[in-house]
Amino acid sequence: MRGFYIGRFQPYHNGHHRMVEEIAAEVDELVLGIGSAGDSHSPRNPFTAGERIMMVTKAVKDFDVTTYAVPIEDLDRNSVWVSHVQSMSPAFEVAYSNNPLVIQLFKEAGVEVRQSPMFNREVLEGTEVRQRMIEDRDWESLVPDAVVDVVYEIGGIERIQRVTASDGAEHVTTDDNSSPC
Amino acid sequence: MRGFYIGRFQPYHNGHHRMVEEIAAEVDELVLGIGSAGDSHSPRNPFTAGERIMMVTKAVKDFDVTTYAVPIEDLDRNSVWVSHVQSMSPAFEVAYSNNPLVIQLFKEAGVEVRQSPMFNREVLEGTEVRQRMIEDRDWESLVPDAVVDVVYEIGGIERIQRVTASDGAEHVTTDDNSSPC
Amino acid sequence: MRGFYIGRFQPYHNGHHRMVEEIAAEVDELVLGIGSAGDSHSPRNPFTAGERIMMVTKAVKDFDVTTYAVPIEDLDRNSVWVSHVQSMSPAFEVAYSNNPLVIQLFKEAGVEVRQSPMFNREVLEGTEVRQRMIEDRDWESLVPDAVVDVVYEIGGIERIQRVTASDGAEHVTTDDNSSPC
Amino acid sequence: MRGFYIGRFQPYHNGHHRMVEEIAAEVDELVLGIGSAGDSHSPRNPFTAGERIMMVTKAVKDFDVTTYAVPIEDLDRNSVWVSHVQSMSPAFEVAYSNNPLVIQLFKEAGVEVRQSPMFNREVLEGTEVRQRMIEDRDWESLVPDAVVDVVYEIGGIERIQRVTASDGAEHVTTDDNSSPC
Amino acid sequence: MRGFYIGRFQPYHNGHHRMVEEIAAEVDELVLGIGSAGDSHSPRNPFTAGERIMMVTKAVKDFDVTTYAVPIEDLDRNSVWVSHVQSMSPAFEVAYSNNPLVIQLFKEAGVEVRQSPMFNREVLEGTEVRQRMIEDRDWESLVPDAVVDVVYEIGGIERIQRVTASDGAEHVTTDDNSSPC
Amino acid sequence: MRGFYIGRFQPYHNGHHRMVEEIAAEVDELVLGIGSAGDSHSPRNPFTAGERIMMVTKAVKDFDVTTYAVPIEDLDRNSVWVSHVQSMSPAFEVAYSNNPLVIQLFKEAGVEVRQSPMFNREVLEGTEVRQRMIEDRDWESLVPDAVVDVVYEIGGIERIQRVTASDGAEHVTTDDNSSPC
Repeated sequence: MRGFYIGRFQPYHNGHHRMVEEIAAEVDELVLGIGSAGDSHSPRNPFTAGERIMMVTKAVKDFDVTTYAVPIEDLDRNSVWVSHVQSMSPAFEVAYSNNPLVIQLFKEAGVEVRQSPMFNREVLEGTEVRQRMIEDRDWESLVPDAVVDVVYEIGGIERIQRVTASDGAEHVTTDDNSSPC
Repeated sequence: MRGFYIGRFQPYHNGHHRMVEEIAAEVDELVLGIGSAGDSHSPRNPFTAGERIMMVTKAVKDFDVTTYAVPIEDLDRNSVWVSHVQSMSPAFEVAYSNNPLVIQLFKEAGVEVRQSPMFNREVLEGTEVRQRMIEDRDWESLVPDAVVDVVYEIGGIERIQRVTASDGAEHVTTDDNSSPC
Repeated sequence: MRGFYIGRFQPYHNGHHRMVEEIAAEVDELVLGIGSAGDSHSPRNPFTAGERIMMVTKAVKDFDVTTYAVPIEDLDRNSVWVSHVQSMSPAFEVAYSNNPLVIQLFKEAGVEVRQSPMFNREVLEGTEVRQRMIEDRDWESLVPDAVVDVVYEIGGIERIQRVTASDGAEHVTTDDNSSPC
Repeated sequence: MRGFYIGRFQPYHNGHHRMVEEIAAEVDELVLGIGSAGDSHSPRNPFTAGERIMMVTKAVKDFDVTTYAVPIEDLDRNSVWVSHVQSMSPAFEVAYSNNPLVIQLFKEAGVEVRQSPMFNREVLEGTEVRQRMIEDRDWESLVPDAVVDVVYEIGGIERIQRVTASDGAEHVTTDDNSSPC
Repeated sequence: MRGFYIGRFQPYHNGHHRMVEEIAAEVDELVLGIGSAGDSHSPRNPFTAGERIMMVTKAVKDFDVTTYAVPIEDLDRNSVWVSHVQSMSPAFEVAYSNNPLVIQLFKEAGVEVRQSPMFNREVLEGTEVRQRMIEDRDWESLVPDAVVDVVYEIGGIERIQRVTASDGAEHVTTDDNSSPC
Repeated sequence: MRGFYIGRFQPYHNGHHRMVEEIAAEVDELVLGIGSAGDSHSPRNPFTAGERIMMVTKAVKDFDVTTYAVPIEDLDRNSVWVSHVQSMSPAFEVAYSNNPLVIQLFKEAGVEVRQSPMFNREVLEGTEVRQRMIEDRDWESLVPDAVVDVVYEIGGIERIQRVTASDGAEHVTTDDNSSPC
């Protein structure tokens, strides 16, 4: 039995890791969908898909299931989103999510969804990790060791601090929908 | 003479219906443009283009003009929007709208625009209908009977309630521009 | 029971018309998907989606089923094509097609497909009608009367002759993938 | 040595002009990137790329450097933005910007970036110019004469006032991501 | 009076140059649309939009009219192509073209088109110039001096020879629609 | 040292496998880019990205390097292709390819490229494997065992035979650029 679990993994942190551990006990193989794969270099989405694939792959290496880290680019159409995911991912029987929209879309497509109270907590942790990176406070204790290595290898702290830096910049970015001019 | 009237029709309600009735008296044929055709499964745009085509077609059946229900997908470029509409729609001589941007775009393209005080009211009704659907209050009295049938056939109430359900979900959706991860 | 039948309808001709008549006898409502909706002004796809909606709607008016003419824009991804169609169309239980790719895609999505020997013939007729339009030979006898009216109203003969006119033009178009420069 | 300076130029005003003058003293040739080239007809982006090319080209005519006015359409992917700019622009050695995101992206791509305190001021002036246009107050003194001519030639004041006009319209536009329905 | 003349300018050669000279005598200002602006690094479209802007701008410098070199990215929809061009270009009254599709599209949009026997010849010259570049034969005599400088500055000969090099490569490119994998 | 090797892997076969083995001896980690990730259900591209991820991941499991299987969707712009690949992939120092266009693009971006005579052979094998699948001849001996399992699990033989089946279907597909109507 193959399971599917999607997150933005900006970055992959201990909340995700505990969740993956929990799911790994229920499935034979696990697909980790890396959402908003095309986004990067913004305060909320600092890391590229490639960097997140590296984080996820290295962090889950020791779990005893075959895992796939699959980037999923955003579409602007909810109605075809499930098909998009299914074409990018190895076939799966169960999707894990607490996001009501994700749940609704999978249910309308006839895919079984499992929920867990842990999901909400894990959403909050992502914001916390990024905030600590921006403010140069301890974020390393909130993520697996493998993620610390990747973030330093790519100069991730400098990047998130810079793209968060100025009022002017943020407005420009926001107004123009994520493009820098 | 053919007229064009665009709305999101989320859902098609009595405000739209009175407007169509009014326009039907002035034209030989009427094109109903279903705006933001690619959007669905969100609190503000719960229904797919196909579902809205069904609502509109069934609701206007008894009017004594030939009508066309034409889905219009959003473009991100105002400057080509009129051409886009014109290529998707049977040719029309008059556009009906109170939206200043729509009016400006049609005028720059040399298309006659007619306005009506009723349009504003109809915008408000859309929000009201969706709010009542979410809160399980009487929405049926605000829409034509044919629309009630369609909404129940597709499980529309359950859908809008689910995609509106949780804080977490809404943030994820909002931040990622309508895509669910 | 609702059926779905897709074609490019460039233009809608007697082959399509007989097919629609045949299908109409099996279904309560019929969705006519207008494929490659974004294409127009080329030798193979001379007419816009709006023009084809007009042809189809007027031609099927006398059949005794509710019909929907729904433009379907091309996607470049076969794997999400069925979801795309389903979101743009009123829900349907049966799809009518002889195209092996369409059949395969609908079957993988669990949609029933019905085939008919007539489909092949109808594909050939489209090419024949356009060729006669280009060469100013009798094409009117191959299409319903309503289609003749629409083609003349929009200056369709002049258009297809012009866009087919010159060697130079064709190369430019072909090389640049349907864009005119 | 060729320099690159990007702005939305909605419209090109005296703040931009002083900046261009300053840069012109440092480079042999200057590329002026016209950002968000696809946006127009909105309160924040009233003018088309073509109109802005005209403003910029006429306004910088008297400077003693070869200048190129190059429209840059928005992409939704920061990670490929620099390549996109580089393919649309004559090759440049230095980019001028105070936007932290732009700076970060160019630095990661190995392009030298120069900053100046003047940039912030110039961002503020754009908002001020548009606000004055909307309120029919003196905006002409804030832009080069050539820009005044272009704005009047294209009916720019009427346009920005109309697209800013009504509450209803603004909401519709905002909700639907810049498309008018 | 402003004129518009579109070409791919791969590269800008003497045939284009004579045409521009001819048009320059009829207009006050001239817009040179650089078609298929997004294409580059292929045997038929070796140069980027930025490189072609440089060629054109330098080559027409001595003509006595204001010129604008405007990149025009391909759209896949003929029906909105004229609006796309008009939004990217300073407003123009006359378009110069011998391409029947371009002529038809501009005419349907109410734009005056002027033709000339020279256009056909100029299309042939583009192929000839690229063929000579590939075969290391004299191509310099077929283009303005400014273009020779640009081609050498960017390593253009090496590039076109490489992307034309192997059978394997060409198939891959062709089959995958211009993307290199 | 991390290496990058791109292929369409339709399907992953022994030619790819020997190449990966060869590269694995030179690098610490290996990224396998799955090209044309959005294409599937066609005679030349029968398998989805998710199915190919499964083939590749299972087949390379026993090699003694960390491997990443990364889907790369086609872009229509060669000039931003390298940035696109780099954002989707873990950072790499060397790219392996014999495709002259790929080589040229990586070289212009300053990425080291290594070639090998084996690449050409491997291209030919892909065509051979698909042809045998279509004709129900022995293809299993040309691919790793893990790939045989995946192809049977997903009903791959039936799919490729069906989408290759008919003349009518192929023409429709070809003319409409990979979309099935």
